[in-house]
Amino acid sequence: MHHAVIMAGGAGTRLWPLSRTARPKQLLKLIGGESLLRKAYRRLAAFLPPQSIHVITNRMHLELIAADLPEVPAENLFGEPQGRDTANAVGLAAAILRQRDPEAVMGVFTADHVIEPQDRFTAAVRTAYGMAEQHADALVTMGIRPARPETGYGYVERGDRIDEGVFAVQRFTEKPEQAVAEQYVAGGDYYWNSGMFTWRADTILAQLKQHLPASHDGVCEIAAAWDTPDREACLERIYPGLEKISVDFAVMERAPRVLVVEMDCRWLDVGSWTALEAVVDADAEGNVVVADRTASVDARGNIVVGEDDHLIATLGVEDLVIVHSPDATLVCRKDDAQAIKKLVAAVQERHGEQYR
Amino acid sequence: MHHAVIMAGGAGTRLWPLSRTARPKQLLKLIGGESLLRKAYRRLAAFLPPQSIHVITNRMHLELIAADLPEVPAENLFGEPQGRDTANAVGLAAAILRQRDPEAVMGVFTADHVIEPQDRFTAAVRTAYGMAEQHADALVTMGIRPARPETGYGYVERGDRIDEGVFAVQRFTEKPEQAVAEQYVAGGDYYWNSGMFTWRADTILAQLKQHLPASHDGVCEIAAAWDTPDREACLERIYPGLEKISVDFAVMERAPRVLVVEMDCRWLDVGSWTALEAVVDADAEGNVVVADRTASVDARGNIVVGEDDHLIATLGVEDLVIVHSPDATLVCRKDDAQAIKKLVAAVQERHGEQYR
Repeated sequence: MHHAVIMAGGAGTRLWPLSRTARPKQLLKLIGGESLLRKAYRRLAAFLPPQSIHVITNRMHLELIAADLPEVPAENLFGEPQGRDTANAVGLAAAILRQRDPEAVMGVFTADHVIEPQDRFTAAVRTAYGMAEQHADALVTMGIRPARPETGYGYVERGDRIDEGVFAVQRFTEKPEQAVAEQYVAGGDYYWNSGMFTWRADTILAQLKQHLPASHDGVCEIAAAWDTPDREACLERIYPGLEKISVDFAVMERAPRVLVVEMDCRWLDVGSWTALEAVVDADAEGNVVVADRTASVDARGNIVVGEDDHLIATLGVEDLVIVHSPDATLVCRKDDAQAIKKLVAAVQERHGEQYR
Repeated sequence: MHHAVIMAGGAGTRLWPLSRTARPKQLLKLIGGESLLRKAYRRLAAFLPPQSIHVITNRMHLELIAADLPEVPAENLFGEPQGRDTANAVGLAAAILRQRDPEAVMGVFTADHVIEPQDRFTAAVRTAYGMAEQHADALVTMGIRPARPETGYGYVERGDRIDEGVFAVQRFTEKPEQAVAEQYVAGGDYYWNSGMFTWRADTILAQLKQHLPASHDGVCEIAAAWDTPDREACLERIYPGLEKISVDFAVMERAPRVLVVEMDCRWLDVGSWTALEAVVDADAEGNVVVADRTASVDARGNIVVGEDDHLIATLGVEDLVIVHSPDATLVCRKDDAQAIKKLVAAVQERHGEQYR
């Protein structure tokens, strides 16, 4: 059976002060009144039943996620006691799914992105599930057709053609320099590494066993206890000791057979306030407004975000990011929005953990 | 006996969103954790007992004012059912004071200003009370030595010298053009019209009777009922019908004998956010901060105001006014701060009276 696992473990400091440790960015209702997590869910629910869709997340977020995705059965929400990066999150999900369905074919999906259009997403994911079934020994990654020479992403170089839109992976690359990224895009053989995968659960676990055996043994032991009263004790005992490493480094770059399925979609990482400009229509003055109550006079090119009925009123200002949350307000220049980590550090130094 | 009446009827749109109809700017604790009203009270309490100090205000603010000035007896707080400008506020206060003390000599003071230093203020006010006693037929105004050719104020031209720092008033002037204001300041014969006065209560009432008889009769009728159960009914019946006009236009400019007492003080109208720069020390980056919780990185020259423990965090921004109130946040450029009325109008058009 086809299963999907949405990875919802991110923190999202750059979306401070709305995103916090206790409320990660995937749960912010920034676009069309809907969270990124729910968007990720709905993309999958277009072709999978809700009982096939799972989420793995920090367990402190389970309640919020259950409220955001009421269609998903409670047993499909997997809580980690702490983040141990994607190798362990993927491994734990795979081990639980295999425990419940020894023939499980699973997809791994991110919750940080806007991906459009749905039909191309659906087509590529269906192809990827098909490849994972057809090539039982293969790990399948989804590669986004690069829209620009982005230096912030990793790339996947394709090799031999396997099928329509499916290729063997030649290699994974680190984040490239600008000139290199331009070559990648011009040549046509490189995809953005999307962090989305399909595979048989037993195949990824076999690879994990080979390349990261302690994690493999740990997640299998936890999975054996998962649907028993011992789950929490077992998680607490084992999970925090697992090596923190990504599935890309630990497994994908070392696996003998990796395929890439091309996904020709708009793929937007909503990882910073300025990213909203790409996904939310601006008003006539170029302001991107995600807030119920605003008023402005002679204000242009601002990004204004608020979640409740607090009014944000702007006068004469340009190119600012203004974000109101119940306990903190951010005002910064759009071109400084990447430096929010520095500000959050200053906030914590001055006012403690409350604002983390 | 010497009585003082603080006029606390202003609205203060330019200090929106902290100042509102329901909470006027005089009550904002902007400077040293103290309201402008309390500063006005303390300036007077330096030489008058609390039971000689009165406040006249919109009656909706009486409770807030009583809480702000616990030393002042409740019967000294005069509530108007609605603002009818200073001629009627002054008249009503004079009529009540004369009712209680037929020999009352009263001073009228504003609550919108920071006035320093105390000793010069005290000296000028004492002189003004003395002049009002000595010249029973005179109205006495206090004139501020102009610090600059301000075009936003009215001026008082002095005539014959009466005493040390006391002159007959030659005339009152409207707000002047820049060139005229420069002449005024250079010549040395002009003072800023401070809106502060002293006189015998019966003298101002006699002048009111002559120049604005309906108001005179109205406030005297109200005063007769003031300390009886009929006060509210009488106020409601008469006060809203009185002509809305300032004491300057209605009386001062027409009175036969007006003296001006020179006050050589720093006199700061805290009527807009940018005015805070003159009365609150800036931090090392030139930010004027009136807020308990702030953090900033690379932010310079901003005015940041908040009243509660909501955090205001700024990054890379310059020369902004940022004001947080519980239900609304303002972000504007410092050089636009005078245009806040326009913004408040836009807010009301879009979101109704809540934010007035």
